[in-house]
Amino acid sequence: MLTNRRKIHIEWGDCDPAGIVYYPRYFAYFDNCTAALFRAAGLRKHTMIKTYGIVGIPMVDTRARFFAPSRYGDEVLVESSITEWRRSSFDVHHLLFQGKTLAVECHETRVWAAAAPHKTGKIEGRPVPAEVIRRFTKPGKRVRR
Amino acid sequence: MLTNRRKIHIEWGDCDPAGIVYYPRYFAYFDNCTAALFRAAGLRKHTMIKTYGIVGIPMVDTRARFFAPSRYGDEVLVESSITEWRRSSFDVHHLLFQGKTLAVECHETRVWAAAAPHKTGKIEGRPVPAEVIRRFTKPGKRVRR
Amino acid sequence: MLTNRRKIHIEWGDCDPAGIVYYPRYFAYFDNCTAALFRAAGLRKHTMIKTYGIVGIPMVDTRARFFAPSRYGDEVLVESSITEWRRSSFDVHHLLFQGKTLAVECHETRVWAAAAPHKTGKIEGRPVPAEVIRRFTKPGKRVRR
Amino acid sequence: MLTNRRKIHIEWGDCDPAGIVYYPRYFAYFDNCTAALFRAAGLRKHTMIKTYGIVGIPMVDTRARFFAPSRYGDEVLVESSITEWRRSSFDVHHLLFQGKTLAVECHETRVWAAAAPHKTGKIEGRPVPAEVIRRFTKPGKRVRR
Repeated sequence: MLTNRRKIHIEWGDCDPAGIVYYPRYFAYFDNCTAALFRAAGLRKHTMIKTYGIVGIPMVDTRARFFAPSRYGDEVLVESSITEWRRSSFDVHHLLFQGKTLAVECHETRVWAAAAPHKTGKIEGRPVPAEVIRRFTKPGKRVRR
Repeated sequence: MLTNRRKIHIEWGDCDPAGIVYYPRYFAYFDNCTAALFRAAGLRKHTMIKTYGIVGIPMVDTRARFFAPSRYGDEVLVESSITEWRRSSFDVHHLLFQGKTLAVECHETRVWAAAAPHKTGKIEGRPVPAEVIRRFTKPGKRVRR
Repeated sequence: MLTNRRKIHIEWGDCDPAGIVYYPRYFAYFDNCTAALFRAAGLRKHTMIKTYGIVGIPMVDTRARFFAPSRYGDEVLVESSITEWRRSSFDVHHLLFQGKTLAVECHETRVWAAAAPHKTGKIEGRPVPAEVIRRFTKPGKRVRR
Repeated sequence: MLTNRRKIHIEWGDCDPAGIVYYPRYFAYFDNCTAALFRAAGLRKHTMIKTYGIVGIPMVDTRARFFAPSRYGDEVLVESSITEWRRSSFDVHHLLFQGKTLAVECHETRVWAAAAPHKTGKIEGRPVPAEVIRRFTKPGKRVRR
């Protein structure tokens, strides 16, 4: 299972008056980490959109639990992987570590989505191509991006 | 049960290249809506911190499900209420409507938190004062802020 | 000259560990205020794009000076107006007041921009239609949005 | 003169519905680049605050000019340096390159600021220590952070 590891430097503007990361910013970190995980699998967003005729991989459900705060100047590490593939959706899992402490855990469910024919502005799920799934399942591979 | 309703004008900078709200921004909306709910109950953050000796009401767990996207220029309505009080934590529930469509639903669990004595930088839960809870339980009251 | 006045409630997530508005957020406020100024003139972004065949009014030059900080919970007032029209560009001026104190002043230069023919992804200035300018020059009108 | 060079990967959430970087985000990039420039000079924010008794280096004036847009997935390079030291303030200059094209140029004026004695919440400029200035003036040194 492909796992991507990404260092994040906590910036001043990501923190709130309590001096800790403003929690909505974690979701932006995790969105960036999902994009980085796909790049690690050789799938850049632009390429995916062109190659597979999708509009993207929009979020339908996400949940985060916060165990310890991070502060300005901290370097945290996020480990991201895909934990389940279904017909037209999949789950991403992120673990954010502050040193050895698990600080935040996040689950995402995203859809492999294309424009719905004959319905302007609507999207619908499409089957995830087998070759896409295969890119994430090479055993033991760990990549840093 | 006190329910606060809040209109949000979707701004250009809240939207992504797909033309829809960048989902981490919804969590900022909901955080603002929780603050507005407490103000509707007569509890401004500054006052709460001074009166009750807490450091705030930090998030420990939040989950959002996305049913329909919103776009630049849309006006959405968020209904926020507290659905459960426990000894030192509580749950907030937000429903974001795009017209009559439920577009996003969010659950939050927050802690009534004070600085832990003798542990610099650590916080711990404290019992939520009965008078705080009482402010949210006046039956039937609906306030717009 | 049309002047639009807009109240902004400073949110927790707009502030940094120093407890004051993180200055890049002011530029988002001002961008929103320019959009509100155009709406006050009867020009919604979507409509402008359709009616005049432009791609938008992108920023080419902006400068802000910061005289006093604002904090979480403050209500500030922004006064916005267009101070000069040129052939295909124009200047917007914002004054942000904290009570009676001028806290931030911002100048913007924006372009009335359309897609450049035969150059994918390039844009170019176009003459601002006289009827657009006229909407901002009704003497004495003051609108709140 | 110390010049710091920093690569920035343009993230999806930094871009707007026009598909280009939402311009207020550039100011966050530049703020991060100024922090990185000081780190390159051996001055971490936390250390500076402790060592010199300041509250920070708040922005008093900033201006950016936008020559070419950047898009999701682009890698840009920012070159940052301090162009002038005055008694209690200084100027920072950033050049953001998209490939070989200068895409954005930014000037900042910041203050070496401490808490004003006997005035709660007020800050005032203090003379910049000579040893701080010296760290930026080693000839020819170029550091990547």
